[in-house]
Amino acid sequence: MKKVKIALLGLGNVAKGVLSIIRENKEQIVKRSGYEVEIAKILVRDVKKDRGVEVPTEILTTSYEEILNDNEIKIVVEVMGGIEPAKEYIIKAMEAKKQIVTANKMLLATCGDEVFEKADEMGVSFQYEASVAGGIPIINGISQSLTANKINTLYGIINGTTNYILSKMELENLNFEDVLKEAQDKGYAEADPTSDIEGYDAQYKLVILSSLAFGTKIKPEHVYREGITKINSIDMEYASSFGMVIKLLAIAKEENGELELRVHPTMIPETHPLANVYDSFNAVFINGNAVGDMMFYGRGAGSLPTGSAVVSDIIWILRNNVEVENMQPVVKNNLWEMNIKDLKDIESRYYLRITVSDKPGVLGQITTIFGANKVSLKSVIQKGVKQEENIDVTLVLITHSTTEGLIMDSIERLYDLKTVKSIDNIIRIEDFR
Amino acid sequence: MKKVKIALLGLGNVAKGVLSIIRENKEQIVKRSGYEVEIAKILVRDVKKDRGVEVPTEILTTSYEEILNDNEIKIVVEVMGGIEPAKEYIIKAMEAKKQIVTANKMLLATCGDEVFEKADEMGVSFQYEASVAGGIPIINGISQSLTANKINTLYGIINGTTNYILSKMELENLNFEDVLKEAQDKGYAEADPTSDIEGYDAQYKLVILSSLAFGTKIKPEHVYREGITKINSIDMEYASSFGMVIKLLAIAKEENGELELRVHPTMIPETHPLANVYDSFNAVFINGNAVGDMMFYGRGAGSLPTGSAVVSDIIWILRNNVEVENMQPVVKNNLWEMNIKDLKDIESRYYLRITVSDKPGVLGQITTIFGANKVSLKSVIQKGVKQEENIDVTLVLITHSTTEGLIMDSIERLYDLKTVKSIDNIIRIEDFR
Ligand SMILES: NC(=O)c1ccc[n+]([C@@H]2O[C@H](COP(=O)([O-])OP(=O)(O)OC[C@H]3O[C@@H](n4cnc5c(N)ncnc54)[C@H](OP(=O)(O)O)[C@@H]3O)[C@@H](O)[C@H]2O)c1
Ligand SMILES: NC(=O)c1ccc[n+]([C@@H]2O[C@H](COP(=O)([O-])OP(=O)(O)OC[C@H]3O[C@@H](n4cnc5c(N)ncnc54)[C@H](OP(=O)(O)O)[C@@H]3O)[C@@H](O)[C@H]2O)c1
Repeated sequence: MKKVKIALLGLGNVAKGVLSIIRENKEQIVKRSGYEVEIAKILVRDVKKDRGVEVPTEILTTSYEEILNDNEIKIVVEVMGGIEPAKEYIIKAMEAKKQIVTANKMLLATCGDEVFEKADEMGVSFQYEASVAGGIPIINGISQSLTANKINTLYGIINGTTNYILSKMELENLNFEDVLKEAQDKGYAEADPTSDIEGYDAQYKLVILSSLAFGTKIKPEHVYREGITKINSIDMEYASSFGMVIKLLAIAKEENGELELRVHPTMIPETHPLANVYDSFNAVFINGNAVGDMMFYGRGAGSLPTGSAVVSDIIWILRNNVEVENMQPVVKNNLWEMNIKDLKDIESRYYLRITVSDKPGVLGQITTIFGANKVSLKSVIQKGVKQEENIDVTLVLITHSTTEGLIMDSIERLYDLKTVKSIDNIIRIEDFR
Repeated sequence: MKKVKIALLGLGNVAKGVLSIIRENKEQIVKRSGYEVEIAKILVRDVKKDRGVEVPTEILTTSYEEILNDNEIKIVVEVMGGIEPAKEYIIKAMEAKKQIVTANKMLLATCGDEVFEKADEMGVSFQYEASVAGGIPIINGISQSLTANKINTLYGIINGTTNYILSKMELENLNFEDVLKEAQDKGYAEADPTSDIEGYDAQYKLVILSSLAFGTKIKPEHVYREGITKINSIDMEYASSFGMVIKLLAIAKEENGELELRVHPTMIPETHPLANVYDSFNAVFINGNAVGDMMFYGRGAGSLPTGSAVVSDIIWILRNNVEVENMQPVVKNNLWEMNIKDLKDIESRYYLRITVSDKPGVLGQITTIFGANKVSLKSVIQKGVKQEENIDVTLVLITHSTTEGLIMDSIERLYDLKTVKSIDNIIRIEDFR
């Protein structure tokens, strides 16, 4: 039996999943890869810390040099996260002709190019299936199995925490703050949940997916981003009354060499396959000009699902090229030059929730403003609410398809009306056409 | 720009999709594979036949030798179907060191081994993503991206025609025969629909999927098979009243080295992701011990979706090894020896629809028979129907989990009862546990 030594950088959630899979599924790995995998070293910051996992203390180290200089270690698995020192470590490992597996979306999204180029230069493998949507093989799917296609659109529910929160809000009619707190208590959401609930995590992942799908260089700042903190259970109820649900959607569309990239809460028809993606599940829905509509669905995070992607990447390397030059071109994001569409030019339908004073003619004033901007309204719902002696009214408007620019301009004009008390929420509606 | 010549065997539905993608997505293919792909030869039976597609007549040929002896042709794409001469042609191409792409599920399911071994012996690539579920990358998914897992269960809606028929029956409350006829008129079902509606097509596909997922040799006769011809819109209605839908499901489960393999109409909870797979869409739902639940969803057939898989396979070969020895072990179905579970030992819940005479004590007699076989009933519904002067009654029984053997024994005993007029349908219920 051939043996191979690998090293892990980090011993957190993902690393523990990798450890457990390598132990538990030893037979599968041996038979499928032809190798017995030995975890020879694990890099940590503190070798004494109790991480609730049994590992021989002699394989823990705080010195990266020890891993780098060990010629028997053929594969370095970076599961520590963050940009530095992760990037430096990966580059050095490549220079030492080690093959790399990573789960680091932040690194890939912000400085992937540098790492891709180094992998190419050194002829080593650089695998990162785990970086997006955990166990779902979306990276391989796009970069190996859908290559015959010109991808038209890509829609993803790619952040488990926010999907968990929105699902709870929808199904149990709860408020954002309450669900967030519960999720934090249960460990489903981080103590600092900013990266998830403000959409940064999904933004990074969309950068990675769309770079591959459209073969072009994309940076986080190309992706418009909006989190879910403003979503209210009232919006959920209205959505439901229109036959829709609200999801944090990552959206990428290509048309005539122009790319539209955005992450924001989105109302989608409840009959769409993505509408049934509940809880912390992830899904990516793709339309390609040959394959048509397709969807990948599964666990987007967690120790074992993410470990599944990492270990499958290790097996891929072992099967293909652990001893030889990597032959797959690793850089695939420099095939086309594309423009990024300005947010104001994107087309969408919109849901608007507005509070107005209940005075005669208000609705007329409002529709006039939209009309002047050529925004036509599909439906208007009016609901009375009593606030501090004044009678205020909630107006819910659904527009026909229009542009973001025209909507924003209309909103600005609405603020000029004395009768408009507040614009409570604006949510884009996706019809998947 | 590097150029590569390929040949197609056959110019039917799939071949036309391949042609159209190679023309339409030329730029994508060139950029992603690094090659300009030229279709140098197409094998047909009759060069004069009008196939509604424009191809230069000089590339059509009825002589396979012409393709075989052309050393410039590096890849042979077999899209003619059937066992012979397809098998002979593939083997000869491999012996001539050509790389192979096929969509031929029948060939793979019935004599895949021989072809796998030849590919291994000759060191050529043998790609067959298109053989199961059209454009959905389920073959790559299982054989490359989920390799870290021990797969526990696999459930597939892998025949588009039957899913189309069942969807229509369910959603429009129609009868099997009417929908079948309509599907045939529209070209969605073949003039001879046996392979689809009797479950042979799904059986072949399950052989291919489960061989890969469980790394063991599986033959069509290992898979219990039952078609959808007995499904009645009455069964659909009852299913719906229990919160279930009926799908033709391909099921594979592994436990302690024992495999359970079957294709049959199945009642599944309407909340399960597979329940929402309508129309001619396909989906494969997998549970792996690391990745958990995951699902692949998309177009399972048709010219372009199937062509998408074929052309992506061509690109894979071009990227990796068109000029060199294939390095991926191609035979992955001989890793484990497994027993095939006897049908009588499978565990399931059951739906039974029975016609009985409306006499006192009938229900008692029936429950006694089930009780004697330790089959306990979860619910019993009784519905009066008047037939030819006698008052007959429809009984619908839902059992708790039991074995197929005990159910079949109970059924046999039911026939002994004079009051039991007919056993109208027996449908297995899957709870995905
Ligand atoms: N968790 C998921 O479900 C998931 C899913 C997909 C992708 N990812 C990605 O996977 C990576 C790891 O995530 P995680 O959840 O496993 O993180 P985590 O639980 O926070 O673990 C990080 C580990 O890295 C170690 N580490 C951090 N900086 C280090 C340094 N400078 N030197 C040595 N060791 C260092 C930490 O050491 P100490 O133990 O000594 O602190 C810890 O063991 C991240 O890139 C993340 O984005 C995670
Ligand atoms: N259709 C789908 O959606 C789909 C999806 C997945 C997989 N597949 C598989 O793909 C394969 C092709 O299916 P298809 O639907 O494209 O079939 P098809 O439309 O019936 O086309 C078959 C083609 O092969 C040619 N052919 C058959 N036997 C031949 C022989 N002995 N010598 C030369 N040419 C021969 C036929 O030639 P003539 O034109 O001269 O008769 C015809 O052009 C099958 O294995 C099928 O199972 C199909």
